[in-house]
Amino acid sequence: MRSSAPDSLWAVILAGGVGSRFWPVSRPSRPKQLLPLASKQALIADTVNRITDLVPLARVRILAGESLAAPLLNALPHLSRDNLFIEPQARGTAPVLVWAAFQITRTDPDAIMISLHADHVIEPASAFLSLLAEVAQLSKVERRLFTIGARPNRPETGYGYIKPGVSITDTPATFAVDGFIEKPDRETAERYLREGYLWNTGIFVWPAALLLEEIERHTPEIAALLPLLAEGRTSEFFAGVPQLTIDVGLLERSPRVAVAPATFDWDDVGAWDAVARTRDADARGNVVVGAGHAVDSDNCIVWGEEGDVVVFGGQDLVVVRSGGVTMVMPRSRAAELKTLLAALPPDVVAREEGDR
Amino acid sequence: MRSSAPDSLWAVILAGGVGSRFWPVSRPSRPKQLLPLASKQALIADTVNRITDLVPLARVRILAGESLAAPLLNALPHLSRDNLFIEPQARGTAPVLVWAAFQITRTDPDAIMISLHADHVIEPASAFLSLLAEVAQLSKVERRLFTIGARPNRPETGYGYIKPGVSITDTPATFAVDGFIEKPDRETAERYLREGYLWNTGIFVWPAALLLEEIERHTPEIAALLPLLAEGRTSEFFAGVPQLTIDVGLLERSPRVAVAPATFDWDDVGAWDAVARTRDADARGNVVVGAGHAVDSDNCIVWGEEGDVVVFGGQDLVVVRSGGVTMVMPRSRAAELKTLLAALPPDVVAREEGDR
Repeated sequence: MRSSAPDSLWAVILAGGVGSRFWPVSRPSRPKQLLPLASKQALIADTVNRITDLVPLARVRILAGESLAAPLLNALPHLSRDNLFIEPQARGTAPVLVWAAFQITRTDPDAIMISLHADHVIEPASAFLSLLAEVAQLSKVERRLFTIGARPNRPETGYGYIKPGVSITDTPATFAVDGFIEKPDRETAERYLREGYLWNTGIFVWPAALLLEEIERHTPEIAALLPLLAEGRTSEFFAGVPQLTIDVGLLERSPRVAVAPATFDWDDVGAWDAVARTRDADARGNVVVGAGHAVDSDNCIVWGEEGDVVVFGGQDLVVVRSGGVTMVMPRSRAAELKTLLAALPPDVVAREEGDR
Repeated sequence: MRSSAPDSLWAVILAGGVGSRFWPVSRPSRPKQLLPLASKQALIADTVNRITDLVPLARVRILAGESLAAPLLNALPHLSRDNLFIEPQARGTAPVLVWAAFQITRTDPDAIMISLHADHVIEPASAFLSLLAEVAQLSKVERRLFTIGARPNRPETGYGYIKPGVSITDTPATFAVDGFIEKPDRETAERYLREGYLWNTGIFVWPAALLLEEIERHTPEIAALLPLLAEGRTSEFFAGVPQLTIDVGLLERSPRVAVAPATFDWDDVGAWDAVARTRDADARGNVVVGAGHAVDSDNCIVWGEEGDVVVFGGQDLVVVRSGGVTMVMPRSRAAELKTLLAALPPDVVAREEGDR
């Protein structure tokens, strides 16, 4: 058995989302994490490149369904199939993180597991990695399940929030958690901004073994099925567990949960309007990708994958051409994209590029 | 020589425009008059179908350059090459109308020539044809060059105006012309609207022989070259004449010019925003052509030729996909399309569909 070592860090990256919020660019075969929404490469490539300055590639695992295996390896040519944990079916974050923790502890019982999302934008990476390294060490010493909370700079209604409680440590600053709160309305979000609540980034740091212990204590609906993992009956585990997020299934139940406020800027690139925050804009605030042209326009997102995409006199518009579809909306409607998709004929939404 | 007959009506249709004001749908190979901007067929087809209730097809002539011969006959399968007058080069409306009048008088010295544009929208056709028939008769009796003036319903800055003078006849109402005025500014257009000026439609009715006589009297720069036409040296005629419009070259000079106010609605479909006036809209004012979808949008023009074109939450936008280009602008900017084309890389503007 390997001895505990301060460098026994592992990273698991949740990359299974199908994401329709970037339609028509995002499709089941090309979800958000495979799009170049923050740089000229896919978000998942940004994420892997960032974390591998702290965690060696051999201890990075990407969690996704089988259908994304090939697209992911295509976007990450330096990774191998060994870097993928292919979940038999999507059952929410709780089962898949438990499964990942189980597999990692079999190799490395003292592993500290950093859980990331494939599609976050983080700047600067150095502050991010420093905090993760400190919190990783702390999670072992304090035996805590750490979440990372971002400091809000706007009353965002698209994120969940964390209410920090009493101080645990000063360096790094960490706190107990007084509660996780779902996406608030605008007024509540403004209060949270004033009162120092944190955005729930979904980034976690914990000893993998501690996660499993806490699941045993607080999450009987998963704990009851853990023997299936020990017996190698992974498919039966996934078939049997309930759909459950780690927030609801464990973090809201365990007293060992804590939060470390982020020392970096964080964005989950939740919808089209976020691209204006994450990609470089021209002098008038336009973000132009591919063969886009913004003429006498302000604060537009112009995404051209097929032929030229020209916006003239546009104000705060999202204009996209991809997959045989042109889509235009005001940036202010980006969060309502599902309303649009529900209103369109199903065949317009569902078509994959090859169908055209 | 044929005797003068009241039914000796001819129609010539100016169809040579290259029109970039409907870019990216209009291209040199497919100018505005070949687009279905008012109905499901090309404007030129609307125009020919309308006039042939008054003028037999055998006396309809379409004036255009050679490059449009095939596209025109394609859009008008019931026409033959005999219906085309192919101008050797474009020199403005004065030379080409003189040439048309010359050819028509050789066949029919007493011809009344109705000059139309290929791309006008006119409703109802019955009132239009009645007025043309009356004015045609009158033009022979009064020996006048008649223009048709539309009654403005808005202070349009995109049209030229005619100031009517003293009354000539009551039935139909016709007037002398006190002046032709180029496109006015907004304030002037509002005054013209109040003071009963008429829009210059560019629709003319005159005895073909009278046109040639008046040219002989008032337009020496063309008159000097008329012998070339008589000698069959058409190309030399076009090579030698100056670029000249019939308005500047004759109508502003001849005392025989008169105007008949229209008894019908008229629109020259001058730019993208005009499509909202000429094609049927949905309950929220959206005009959707092809595979367009306007969701929770108002007063948008959505033109989808390649794949689906989806507008969500749009207000007063023009959204077009054609010829490998997506173009988006507010309707209020439609009149400035040339500004856009000047700002774009030339290869984006000039590409024809086949180049992509």
